[in-house]
Amino acid sequence: MYRIDCLQFANWSEPIFRQMRDGSVDAVHVTIAYHETFRETVAQMSQWNRWFDRYGDLIVHGRTVADIDAAKASNRTAIFFGFQNPSPIEADIDLVEIVHTLGARFMQLSYNNQSLLATGCYEENDPGITRMGSEVIREMNRVGLVVDMSHSADRSTIEAAEISQRPITVTHANPHAWHPALRNKRDDVIRAITSNGGMMGFSLYPHHLKGKSDCSIESFCQMVADTVERFGIEHFGIGSDLCQDQPDSIVEWMRVGRWTKHIDYGEGSSAAPGFPPQPPWFETNLDFGNIEVGLASVGFDNTEVGAIMGDNWYRFFAENFGPEKAE
Amino acid sequence: MYRIDCLQFANWSEPIFRQMRDGSVDAVHVTIAYHETFRETVAQMSQWNRWFDRYGDLIVHGRTVADIDAAKASNRTAIFFGFQNPSPIEADIDLVEIVHTLGARFMQLSYNNQSLLATGCYEENDPGITRMGSEVIREMNRVGLVVDMSHSADRSTIEAAEISQRPITVTHANPHAWHPALRNKRDDVIRAITSNGGMMGFSLYPHHLKGKSDCSIESFCQMVADTVERFGIEHFGIGSDLCQDQPDSIVEWMRVGRWTKHIDYGEGSSAAPGFPPQPPWFETNLDFGNIEVGLASVGFDNTEVGAIMGDNWYRFFAENFGPEKAE
Repeated sequence: MYRIDCLQFANWSEPIFRQMRDGSVDAVHVTIAYHETFRETVAQMSQWNRWFDRYGDLIVHGRTVADIDAAKASNRTAIFFGFQNPSPIEADIDLVEIVHTLGARFMQLSYNNQSLLATGCYEENDPGITRMGSEVIREMNRVGLVVDMSHSADRSTIEAAEISQRPITVTHANPHAWHPALRNKRDDVIRAITSNGGMMGFSLYPHHLKGKSDCSIESFCQMVADTVERFGIEHFGIGSDLCQDQPDSIVEWMRVGRWTKHIDYGEGSSAAPGFPPQPPWFETNLDFGNIEVGLASVGFDNTEVGAIMGDNWYRFFAENFGPEKAE
Repeated sequence: MYRIDCLQFANWSEPIFRQMRDGSVDAVHVTIAYHETFRETVAQMSQWNRWFDRYGDLIVHGRTVADIDAAKASNRTAIFFGFQNPSPIEADIDLVEIVHTLGARFMQLSYNNQSLLATGCYEENDPGITRMGSEVIREMNRVGLVVDMSHSADRSTIEAAEISQRPITVTHANPHAWHPALRNKRDDVIRAITSNGGMMGFSLYPHHLKGKSDCSIESFCQMVADTVERFGIEHFGIGSDLCQDQPDSIVEWMRVGRWTKHIDYGEGSSAAPGFPPQPPWFETNLDFGNIEVGLASVGFDNTEVGAIMGDNWYRFFAENFGPEKAE
């Protein structure tokens, strides 16, 4: 039974890596780029290499599920790289293979805004996957870089699922029907993801939760139960979107990047521009146990809890991080 | 009376610069980026600095119309920089001011494909100007970097004209009604450009000509007469799209860049993948006189011929290359 979180973006530090261990987290998909260029992304990878060296007793670079098993056996956490925007490949399809070689395993096709590949969820209009987007999806399929549509618009997401020859993901979001946030996903989007064998990670980011920071663990776990009953438990895991210890300047970077000279509040507002407080039952990497208890309380058996807490992501990682198999 | 060509992309050489002089061309807007990154674009600027140094008796870097007058007085040609894609500003709105400082005076918001700012004319769907696009247009207005929509899709072009507080351009294209090429512009697009005080440059690129390489100078000049009668002569000039001495590998770079691993033939075809031959009456910078004669033949007087051959662009350059005036 694995415990895998398919999205975190913390202000990384030894205490957080130690919490991952104390919290028995076997693997984490970490964001290493929001708006970064290729070169800036490589600098992030270099920073991670330094952390892997310095905190080698706690974390290890994850490239395949074998790294998760090795990490688990040696009481460490495997760290998998991902991008929330295609900015690291700039306008160059050949960089898809390069970033995969460097360890990238997930790439969002857009982040809130229009990208060269797809539309973001904050744009007024969504024309679907672009000419370059279709080409890049096929290249991602070929090398084993997973398409992530967490911050993309609906039509683009549904078209990505159609175009992709391999399963795609929404690593961190919840159903729009439960909490109608712009970032949460409508039923037809969840259906497009899951019906091609893809996966979705339930988010613990307050803006994605019913009642936001006041959301109860019962409400969250009941939402999980309702969702998996409708779409199939094998398609779901956790993508907590945990942003531990980040200063508010970071959420501004996420939202504003370098695309405007003004402030854009995204899911926040001028009255509440920063990170919202986490609900008390999920504040750090120590708290995954609370969710396990919560899931059992709404009726999941041990195998089902394991599937949601990590086993489904383990299977998905095993099948989707390598090169496309020849027919 | 000025002779100004608002778009060329030659395989630059001393013979071509000498033809510009022998052809009495006072100013040329040259493309220095199709798919280049910021850094690669700066390298192009550096290359031009070397040419300005080496061929200082023939060419000079143009930043304002004063440079055209100085060039004319010293029997040289003023070279103005432009981009056919926003790739040089990458995803960074602050680079708009930087590239303007370095001499950029025109920037297309997209080149055939979807960009971060606008849709290209080869995309299936055109959602109009993006969130970043609106911000960048305002920034371009502020510093005096002219919006060029030559390779953009219709809705994006019309919205750009609406959003822009300053006149915008199509530097090189012809009316779709004359020759229904994908790159030629429909009436409502020409109206959007001209009704905000903008300008369009007539193209001599064979794919934009009725009959392509076999287009007669009479047909071209009659098209000019018909167009200016409908939309107003003050809104038109020449943007020849002359690509002298370029190898066919260059047209492949223009079309394919780094967005696909396959070949895209653009306006060409697998049977004719390269540059088409120019019509015999417009092959080099020596041939602007032929167009002047042709325009007189279809009834333009000297002032009108001068307006189309360069005086209109001179006025437009004078008004649009500097910072926005305070209200």
